[in-house]
Amino acid sequence: MAHLTLLIHCKDQKGIIASVTNFILDHGGNTTYIDQHVDAQENVFFMRLECFFEQADFNVELFTKTFAQDIGNPFEMQWQLYPATQKLQMAIFVSKYDHCLYDILGRYNAGELQVNIPFIVSNHKDLAHIAANFDIPFYHIPVTKDTKALAEQRQLDLLREFKVDFIVLARYMQIVTPTIISEYTHRIINIHHSFLPAFVGAKPYHAAFARGVKIIGTTSHYVTEELDAGPIIEQDTIRVTHSHTIPDLIAKGRDLEKIVLSRAIKLHAQHKCFVYGNKTVIFT
Amino acid sequence: MAHLTLLIHCKDQKGIIASVTNFILDHGGNTTYIDQHVDAQENVFFMRLECFFEQADFNVELFTKTFAQDIGNPFEMQWQLYPATQKLQMAIFVSKYDHCLYDILGRYNAGELQVNIPFIVSNHKDLAHIAANFDIPFYHIPVTKDTKALAEQRQLDLLREFKVDFIVLARYMQIVTPTIISEYTHRIINIHHSFLPAFVGAKPYHAAFARGVKIIGTTSHYVTEELDAGPIIEQDTIRVTHSHTIPDLIAKGRDLEKIVLSRAIKLHAQHKCFVYGNKTVIFT
Amino acid sequence: MAHLTLLIHCKDQKGIIASVTNFILDHGGNTTYIDQHVDAQENVFFMRLECFFEQADFNVELFTKTFAQDIGNPFEMQWQLYPATQKLQMAIFVSKYDHCLYDILGRYNAGELQVNIPFIVSNHKDLAHIAANFDIPFYHIPVTKDTKALAEQRQLDLLREFKVDFIVLARYMQIVTPTIISEYTHRIINIHHSFLPAFVGAKPYHAAFARGVKIIGTTSHYVTEELDAGPIIEQDTIRVTHSHTIPDLIAKGRDLEKIVLSRAIKLHAQHKCFVYGNKTVIFT
Amino acid sequence: MAHLTLLIHCKDQKGIIASVTNFILDHGGNTTYIDQHVDAQENVFFMRLECFFEQADFNVELFTKTFAQDIGNPFEMQWQLYPATQKLQMAIFVSKYDHCLYDILGRYNAGELQVNIPFIVSNHKDLAHIAANFDIPFYHIPVTKDTKALAEQRQLDLLREFKVDFIVLARYMQIVTPTIISEYTHRIINIHHSFLPAFVGAKPYHAAFARGVKIIGTTSHYVTEELDAGPIIEQDTIRVTHSHTIPDLIAKGRDLEKIVLSRAIKLHAQHKCFVYGNKTVIFT
Repeated sequence: MAHLTLLIHCKDQKGIIASVTNFILDHGGNTTYIDQHVDAQENVFFMRLECFFEQADFNVELFTKTFAQDIGNPFEMQWQLYPATQKLQMAIFVSKYDHCLYDILGRYNAGELQVNIPFIVSNHKDLAHIAANFDIPFYHIPVTKDTKALAEQRQLDLLREFKVDFIVLARYMQIVTPTIISEYTHRIINIHHSFLPAFVGAKPYHAAFARGVKIIGTTSHYVTEELDAGPIIEQDTIRVTHSHTIPDLIAKGRDLEKIVLSRAIKLHAQHKCFVYGNKTVIFT
Repeated sequence: MAHLTLLIHCKDQKGIIASVTNFILDHGGNTTYIDQHVDAQENVFFMRLECFFEQADFNVELFTKTFAQDIGNPFEMQWQLYPATQKLQMAIFVSKYDHCLYDILGRYNAGELQVNIPFIVSNHKDLAHIAANFDIPFYHIPVTKDTKALAEQRQLDLLREFKVDFIVLARYMQIVTPTIISEYTHRIINIHHSFLPAFVGAKPYHAAFARGVKIIGTTSHYVTEELDAGPIIEQDTIRVTHSHTIPDLIAKGRDLEKIVLSRAIKLHAQHKCFVYGNKTVIFT
Repeated sequence: MAHLTLLIHCKDQKGIIASVTNFILDHGGNTTYIDQHVDAQENVFFMRLECFFEQADFNVELFTKTFAQDIGNPFEMQWQLYPATQKLQMAIFVSKYDHCLYDILGRYNAGELQVNIPFIVSNHKDLAHIAANFDIPFYHIPVTKDTKALAEQRQLDLLREFKVDFIVLARYMQIVTPTIISEYTHRIINIHHSFLPAFVGAKPYHAAFARGVKIIGTTSHYVTEELDAGPIIEQDTIRVTHSHTIPDLIAKGRDLEKIVLSRAIKLHAQHKCFVYGNKTVIFT
Repeated sequence: MAHLTLLIHCKDQKGIIASVTNFILDHGGNTTYIDQHVDAQENVFFMRLECFFEQADFNVELFTKTFAQDIGNPFEMQWQLYPATQKLQMAIFVSKYDHCLYDILGRYNAGELQVNIPFIVSNHKDLAHIAANFDIPFYHIPVTKDTKALAEQRQLDLLREFKVDFIVLARYMQIVTPTIISEYTHRIINIHHSFLPAFVGAKPYHAAFARGVKIIGTTSHYVTEELDAGPIIEQDTIRVTHSHTIPDLIAKGRDLEKIVLSRAIKLHAQHKCFVYGNKTVIFT
């Protein structure tokens, strides 16, 4: 018995859906859910499919191997197969702001997120008590100019030791190193407190105030080497007026940040985000 | 050559997607788009699928007949097949308010709506000049207590003469008769100026004002015999404050009404609305 | 030196603003902020005004007494005067859901709410650990058919002992007793998980699912004897689709509930809510 | 008898509100509405006030002159006084897109906008029929490299002849000349089809598509010499997904553009927009 999630992307061509769903049927399974998209400009086909095998002796390894031979290779697909109920290992990096962390851990406790959280890393000790309250190991790894290399090594050690699948930067106020970015390509989720591409970089609420915008936003995106320029997963906005000071914008923004980051986490944990080029296909 | 839209709904069962897409492939076609939903409570399967046949001698009648034999009947499906680029015949019923009518006709002219508009019916003459400006025949059919039966007959005659597929009540301030409702089951779209099920019936903005709500809404739904109780197609809301008078609510509401009604029209015209029970499945 | 917030409501009449601001000026103060509203239907005038007195020997008692004589009584005003930086005493009642509680306490810690929280009351022990983590006394007061009177007495004792100004029902799944409601008229804030007046009463997400709405909402209101019928403080809404199950609606709703309840708390704590009739004037 | 709107902005200082409202009371008037704002950073005071004089022999000229002497000059105010029911003269410039024009004229007909529209100018003839349908004079003024100076002169002649108060660029696809901008400083309202400051310049929907944003926006702002950089009056946003093509974004954007531009027109026509620095104070 197995419940699987299959992700496919490849050049668009005739017969993909029929071939895949027929293959599943031929192996005794049933396709219970399909999301699919064709990027007509780039001629790329994307599919996320859930399927169910009721037979007691279903052999995932064999199915996977046969799928590669019969479908994956002939269609030149990039594809992954996940147990649909598997929980990914998610590490959280924080600094001093607690609103995103509380929001994530509250949902984690409520069973809303399909992840395990093996540990929280921070360059400060301020939020250790929250980790303790939720019974999650907390590692204080200070990052200074001199300790940068050492800090990166400690972070990598932890990530590898706990077989972390993806990293969430929950208002982590440090640049993640290129080594970690390259080891976790499209698997590091950041929350940037502006409506990207407006107000890239530091102090976006100050910049929004100076420009006199009537709406502020927040953006969750995958981290790439270029700052705040990675593929966007989710955004949201809220109205402001001339009467809002910068601290007001910051307070209003916190409500957006925590909601938007948690939405992005859920989407990633359920394998609903495809990255291609510098954009995402999000199956909601 | 043909581009078809296929709508299916039936009891959920194994192999539907594979069988349908394989059938299409076997007949030389390609499935280019799938939307699908399973109502787990009711165990009902819904699918909207677009497919493309490139062969010059493609025979739709034959394909349709074979599909019924090989797929539709065995799976006990309710299904429809439409040419994907076909334009439905859409009649508009109005009274005196012009904002929805202008919005619809503006989009119609811009090529945004996939419909033909054979005529506009009204129980008043006020909006005849708009119909004239957009070169659409306008029929003034007064509705009074005495002329009700006659009015219904004239409306039915027009609907039949122009082979109307669906009717849009663009703030038509009359009750549509049971005969017309039953002839156009789930094919009459109304816009009700409240966030249903709140404020059913007349004067919803007055009721919203009296209750002191902080948000008003509007609802587009299919007309059924019970007033304002039909399956909901689309809704939207907007914030209001204590400083808004009833005329302010009415003015703000107009912006919602015209946008929401036009969205519902687009969804219906593209065969993206399934009705089952008293609810809708909307593939956007 | 003093920074005061003055709330006024009375029959609309000529010269109110001039008289009040002039009185403040004559007593050496400056009006720094005015919000004002006239309900033209009811002919009622509302004003919230902040003023600042720089003199070292400013005497609030004397000012208050003179204001009553010279302004309040002649205009037949209902009015209150608060130190603008005063923190109200806010009690929190909870049951088993933790999302609103975490949200409130997170903001409390961040200094976002202008209140003190002397204690948390619950009819269950489940959330005691959260109270402990935030160092707030937690009282477990079970409510059963037999202990109802006793429970009410214990609640009243606590409310009085800590001179509680207002009560927040953060998903407290019990009916508050008429005695407490009458002692805290328009000072008990509830969060109801629907877009009122739609879906009054129990299980609103189930009702919303059954009706097939495309948007769900949440409402924060003052508690009155009639269930879910009190003056509305704040509402918000979010889109849903046919693909959302009842648990999905509940999860989505949690995000609305915590944000909307916290907004209502802030408005009340800053004396920005007037209640009249069964409606509110909210100065944001 | 008179109903006046008074706009004030000046250095923040003690006693402004008291002095102004008292002055009005002393001249037999009543202040019926106040909106007020202090920019604490810049130390600037803003106020919009409506007042009502019931006496039959009220002399506006005398009141204005005395106000200048007793209040305006001593406080070094910049101030304007308008009859509250006066309609401003609003010119509309269009090119080929009709959605904003239809929206504006529909509201104009419904009495929703407090303006007169003496004429519509366009560099193309395409929308002349709409002007005709609404009985508004239409001037076709082509703009080419060679006729630019001539076109500007014809535009200026019209603006002066009809004593135009402000200009609305309803998707006018030409740059307005510096001469006109300087003659109509902060009195030309543009609609830019992006969420400024993101996507300044041409083809913002293409740029939004390329960046893969999950929300698009639109911005109404006063025109200044620097392109798309003037003070923002109003903005709004709407969600999009990976499945939306560029034409889809354009169609969705049209709905935002027409609503947002019309909101900005209403605010300006009711003297609810203050410009200072490069920002606005908007009293709604």
